[in-house]
Amino acid sequence: MTFPYNQLFTFTESVFLSMGCPPDDATLATEALLSADLRGIDSHGVARLIGYVRLWEAGRINATPRVGVVYETPSTAVVDGDGGLGLVVAPKAMNIALEKARVAGTGWVSVKNSNHFGIAGYHAMKALAHDMIGMAMTNASPLVAPTYSLDRLLGTNPIAVAIPAGEQPDFVADFATTTAANGKLEIAQRKQLPVPEGWVQNADGSGSTDANAVKNGGALLPLGGETGSHKGYCLGSIVDIFSAVLSGANYGPWVPPFVAFLQPPADPVGQGIGHFFGAMRVDAFRPAAEFKAHMDNWISTFRSAQAVEGKQVIIPGDPERIMSQHRLLEGIPLLDPVIKDLESVGQKFGVKL
Amino acid sequence: MTFPYNQLFTFTESVFLSMGCPPDDATLATEALLSADLRGIDSHGVARLIGYVRLWEAGRINATPRVGVVYETPSTAVVDGDGGLGLVVAPKAMNIALEKARVAGTGWVSVKNSNHFGIAGYHAMKALAHDMIGMAMTNASPLVAPTYSLDRLLGTNPIAVAIPAGEQPDFVADFATTTAANGKLEIAQRKQLPVPEGWVQNADGSGSTDANAVKNGGALLPLGGETGSHKGYCLGSIVDIFSAVLSGANYGPWVPPFVAFLQPPADPVGQGIGHFFGAMRVDAFRPAAEFKAHMDNWISTFRSAQAVEGKQVIIPGDPERIMSQHRLLEGIPLLDPVIKDLESVGQKFGVKL
Repeated sequence: MTFPYNQLFTFTESVFLSMGCPPDDATLATEALLSADLRGIDSHGVARLIGYVRLWEAGRINATPRVGVVYETPSTAVVDGDGGLGLVVAPKAMNIALEKARVAGTGWVSVKNSNHFGIAGYHAMKALAHDMIGMAMTNASPLVAPTYSLDRLLGTNPIAVAIPAGEQPDFVADFATTTAANGKLEIAQRKQLPVPEGWVQNADGSGSTDANAVKNGGALLPLGGETGSHKGYCLGSIVDIFSAVLSGANYGPWVPPFVAFLQPPADPVGQGIGHFFGAMRVDAFRPAAEFKAHMDNWISTFRSAQAVEGKQVIIPGDPERIMSQHRLLEGIPLLDPVIKDLESVGQKFGVKL
Repeated sequence: MTFPYNQLFTFTESVFLSMGCPPDDATLATEALLSADLRGIDSHGVARLIGYVRLWEAGRINATPRVGVVYETPSTAVVDGDGGLGLVVAPKAMNIALEKARVAGTGWVSVKNSNHFGIAGYHAMKALAHDMIGMAMTNASPLVAPTYSLDRLLGTNPIAVAIPAGEQPDFVADFATTTAANGKLEIAQRKQLPVPEGWVQNADGSGSTDANAVKNGGALLPLGGETGSHKGYCLGSIVDIFSAVLSGANYGPWVPPFVAFLQPPADPVGQGIGHFFGAMRVDAFRPAAEFKAHMDNWISTFRSAQAVEGKQVIIPGDPERIMSQHRLLEGIPLLDPVIKDLESVGQKFGVKL
């Protein structure tokens, strides 16, 4: 079943308002959350609304956070999210990075005491309208085993980088530092299909194609596969350290779970989960028009490369941009279990889907 | 055959002096180059000295560059390497990043008109003594095919991130954004061995285990393997854009080759090759002692994770640090063809190995 974007927007905003979010925050959170549905990252969109509601019910999300800077220099800040929705904390922290960049050339903000922020790409893309390069990353609950590890110590820890172009559409990379995002695993579980080799390992560290391996004590694997997983492990670690060790959030195995039925670790090493945002003014390096002309050349060169038969070289962000245009016009398809979840959330608050 | 570090140092420094490098630059370049041999990255160390000499003979390296800032803001700079050795340009550019960070909290330097700079990790590690996080990346001649591409458009474009700890050894990640660095391919060629799947493709885009595939019109593959190479392609692209589109260096297929027998493209889009450096003062985010105590906890937690039998979870930088300690004491082993190359370089300049 397919729903118009505006209908899902009104519904989601009403739910956040019912949770007690101030109106501006409810709008901010809704736009951030639904950007995932528009861009085709269905696992991170409205399907997660019930998850946020349950965390709020469990007293683990503060609907009226006082988000503020607790430490800063001309080009850096640490932001305390006050236990708020990451969907609200992240846009505010990204704005601080943009403001710093306006004055100092670049701005870098590490965030503690936050919750899941939706898709990283949405936050990174906030820089584009200002002719800035945007970066966003976050740590997440531990599902990933470092190379050789049986223990799960890292999240899927995504990295997003958005780079403005001129005539060409902007460059937007947004990817988990694992071989596969957890959402792809959930889809395979739902369809009862095996997953490709290199995605997961069993509890004893052996390779597996079982989509339920992580549920049974196994782990997701870092990007890179058999001969390169140490590189994905490096990337996931860097995201964890920038997001949480710089800010004072929880890191590694201490990152609290997104699901309300799992308790956060009893011995936290910091506050909430952590994010990291960056903004670099393009004209802090060379005149913006010059930069964008060369980005156009970069993009058209790569897009027009000779490709394997039946394929085309894709510029990062192409599929999500096209999906977004399509879904704004044609609506957002939701699976039946997601619709049921939304209806139960609606009933709780007396809001009609 | 094994050579004491000091012997290789004296020899290499004499070669750079004979090329006309000022004494300080010769020392700088030697230390940067030999850091690769110490750390066990044999492909990027003294084995490449003859390559630098040949480029200088071909008039493509300026032994007396005037390295300087051509554009800046409080936290950023673009540095023109004036066609110098990357081994000289990079340390000078990294110093500017450190200087910016001292004042603005962070420093970010994009470099044009440079040449190959040795290993990225060496430059990133320069931040550690200042309680800063260091970053270094560089583009390189095109040997890598983006996902679905038959054309080679990216270099192995490495990323290094060095993060200071307290009692524990520092965290130092340094990796090519391909499944395998070109050096590993060269080793397989020399030993006439096949390479693992996912390292290279043939000229028609099909997967290959032939170590000579790249020489025969094929390409190296981005990090991530069959189901994730788009992520390595993203990473390699980001390195290319930060290093060259921000600075005004050559990017993509225009990056000049390291080998003197291949001519640079006739229609350059910029000057030389590009690098990107970053420095973030740890105490631009939180007190340094606090940060380092948590890094120690991060490191010891990961290192003591339960591991698959016979293995241990490695902290990025561990193997290279141990190798470095070993080789400083026991000397640096060189293969016969490398020794022959060095002897021929020595003869050219009347310098004894």
